[in-house]
Amino acid sequence: MRPRFTVGASDGAARAGTLVTAHGVVETPAFMPVGTYGTVKAMTPEELEHLGAQIILGNTFHLMLRPGAAIVAAHGGLHRFMHWEHPLLTDSGGFQVYSLKSLRRIGEEGVLFRSPVDGREVRLTPEDSMEVQLALRSDIAMALDDCTAHPATEGEARESMERSMRWAARSHARYCREDPPGGLFGIVQGGMHRPLRLASLETLLRLDWAGLAIGGLAVGESEEERLGVLEALVPHMPAGQPRYLMGVGRPEDIVAAVVRGVDLFDCVMPTRHARNGHLFTSSGVLNIRNSAHQDDLTPIDAACDCYTCRNYTRAYLRHLDRCNEILGSRLNTIHNLHFYIGLMRSLRAAIAVGELAAWAKGFLAARRQPTRGF
Amino acid sequence: MRPRFTVGASDGAARAGTLVTAHGVVETPAFMPVGTYGTVKAMTPEELEHLGAQIILGNTFHLMLRPGAAIVAAHGGLHRFMHWEHPLLTDSGGFQVYSLKSLRRIGEEGVLFRSPVDGREVRLTPEDSMEVQLALRSDIAMALDDCTAHPATEGEARESMERSMRWAARSHARYCREDPPGGLFGIVQGGMHRPLRLASLETLLRLDWAGLAIGGLAVGESEEERLGVLEALVPHMPAGQPRYLMGVGRPEDIVAAVVRGVDLFDCVMPTRHARNGHLFTSSGVLNIRNSAHQDDLTPIDAACDCYTCRNYTRAYLRHLDRCNEILGSRLNTIHNLHFYIGLMRSLRAAIAVGELAAWAKGFLAARRQPTRGF
Repeated sequence: MRPRFTVGASDGAARAGTLVTAHGVVETPAFMPVGTYGTVKAMTPEELEHLGAQIILGNTFHLMLRPGAAIVAAHGGLHRFMHWEHPLLTDSGGFQVYSLKSLRRIGEEGVLFRSPVDGREVRLTPEDSMEVQLALRSDIAMALDDCTAHPATEGEARESMERSMRWAARSHARYCREDPPGGLFGIVQGGMHRPLRLASLETLLRLDWAGLAIGGLAVGESEEERLGVLEALVPHMPAGQPRYLMGVGRPEDIVAAVVRGVDLFDCVMPTRHARNGHLFTSSGVLNIRNSAHQDDLTPIDAACDCYTCRNYTRAYLRHLDRCNEILGSRLNTIHNLHFYIGLMRSLRAAIAVGELAAWAKGFLAARRQPTRGF
Repeated sequence: MRPRFTVGASDGAARAGTLVTAHGVVETPAFMPVGTYGTVKAMTPEELEHLGAQIILGNTFHLMLRPGAAIVAAHGGLHRFMHWEHPLLTDSGGFQVYSLKSLRRIGEEGVLFRSPVDGREVRLTPEDSMEVQLALRSDIAMALDDCTAHPATEGEARESMERSMRWAARSHARYCREDPPGGLFGIVQGGMHRPLRLASLETLLRLDWAGLAIGGLAVGESEEERLGVLEALVPHMPAGQPRYLMGVGRPEDIVAAVVRGVDLFDCVMPTRHARNGHLFTSSGVLNIRNSAHQDDLTPIDAACDCYTCRNYTRAYLRHLDRCNEILGSRLNTIHNLHFYIGLMRSLRAAIAVGELAAWAKGFLAARRQPTRGF
């Protein structure tokens, strides 16, 4: 079924809403943990559920290379393959292909690239991406886009954006050809050039999408550039559709984007940082590898009630990290995802009571107070 | 408190019993998952508990190097450090020092070795081992032994065994000096030389131990040699004390030793095999890396009711293994530990009803039937 979005409350430009899918309801603003290869790294689906994750993201690019769409389809789709019963969004592969840089060749038809797994040449057209995503049976699929390089001249950004728009139309045609399992989101491109962003949005709005995403950010631009694009673009996006800012980001970036009216986020940061020993707390990021934690009998964050903070000391977590123990990655990931998911819950609550501005101010102020051991 | 052992049922030489410790009861025969660095690799304590593990093993050698006994002691011991509330056995470090081979120097006082972590010279005497184990506050501590090389001449084995016996007496004196948190096990040595094994046992029995272990096996000897030692030794071991066969082993080895009267086992095999994709089933070991599993929609073992087999296909597990995903190590470890712990439960049940011989025969016969995909 096509996801249905309803705004329940708003506070300035920010909204709290619900996105109803065939696999359940997502409360927005929402953060989607990234499950690249059909697993959110180090977590079971039950753990994600227990942490309050309502939707996760799967990577089309990775899954088409390993294990291949046919094997996932033989299981009945990505939900059953990975034993995740709740909503799933799949990206289109566009951003991953963009990240390959020299290993790809972009043409009007699509992209040819060398597989980083085994070196074979792989084709990814809008139709290919849709066919993989239809096989994965995600609740939300993404149009294939040509992610614009940064920095890009106005001419480069325009050429890339216009290609994305042609690919968006082809994605839409292919995805909607038969009765799809979910809904398709279009992706606004245009680099840091605001008129191009608005032109991209206008082009997309000629078609009927289940939601709209903002692509081509989190590519190395400054915070000012990113917020500039959001401020120019978001007010023109349809109020009744979910807005997804792809690949963003740090907790403070998410707060800033929610304040400006964004509803959905994904980022590898909480899970990747966890495996590298960087742990989120209300006062900033703590590095568990720091020798100050060697004999520290306190939890990561005394105010946190996650499984890790309730049961383990910093000294134990530092020890696990030093010994490269799997449990260290697990406990750190639980903590970081708990932080992100808790952040989204707080944002929703603040919007519901109309106190987002004050809440955001307090949140950002606390993160500027370093504490012992950071 | 000193553990108390009671035999509840016997069947031939085999016994089913209970070992009562300050942290709970262990039903024997029991398998102890190995938690080298204060974590059974890839598992949380709650998962171990859920799998039915009643006792786990911690490695003195590893923990004294990282994080060091003082940091564990500051937490109140290994139980609290690692958040495991049930019985814990610590080994003495003797076997790990033996495995260092050229990096160690053995003298009458103890062993000097180069730390494999940072190259510094470390001393391990019987007194050192006891002090570390007392700091870890394990329910069962092990005497420091000089593990005899294999093969060894009668003279070499005698010299090594006699040193172990002198170290056993020093271990006993140091461990019992103050009120210890648990009980101490002596370790029988003597290589493959049966008269030396009996002499070692006789020497140990001059002191009062909470249990006795059989060391110096699982060092590369043949199955015949190992069973020969067990058959010569076990009938002379006190019936009222638990008997622990250190480092053994494969499921069939455990069954053979239980039949001969052994009560306790530990081995890295289920956890290490899991991380290498080798999965135990009633009909043998399956290698999940085998390409035959690539599109196999069945579980590891259709007869298994572990979390992994209830929720995931071989195709998914093979995919996780290929992608080096942490979840693969987790799911495989759950399955293998479930197999080992289930094996011990079956052995206890068979002993209780006096049908061990028939059960063991059926178990061994099933493992000789390879199935598709192995």
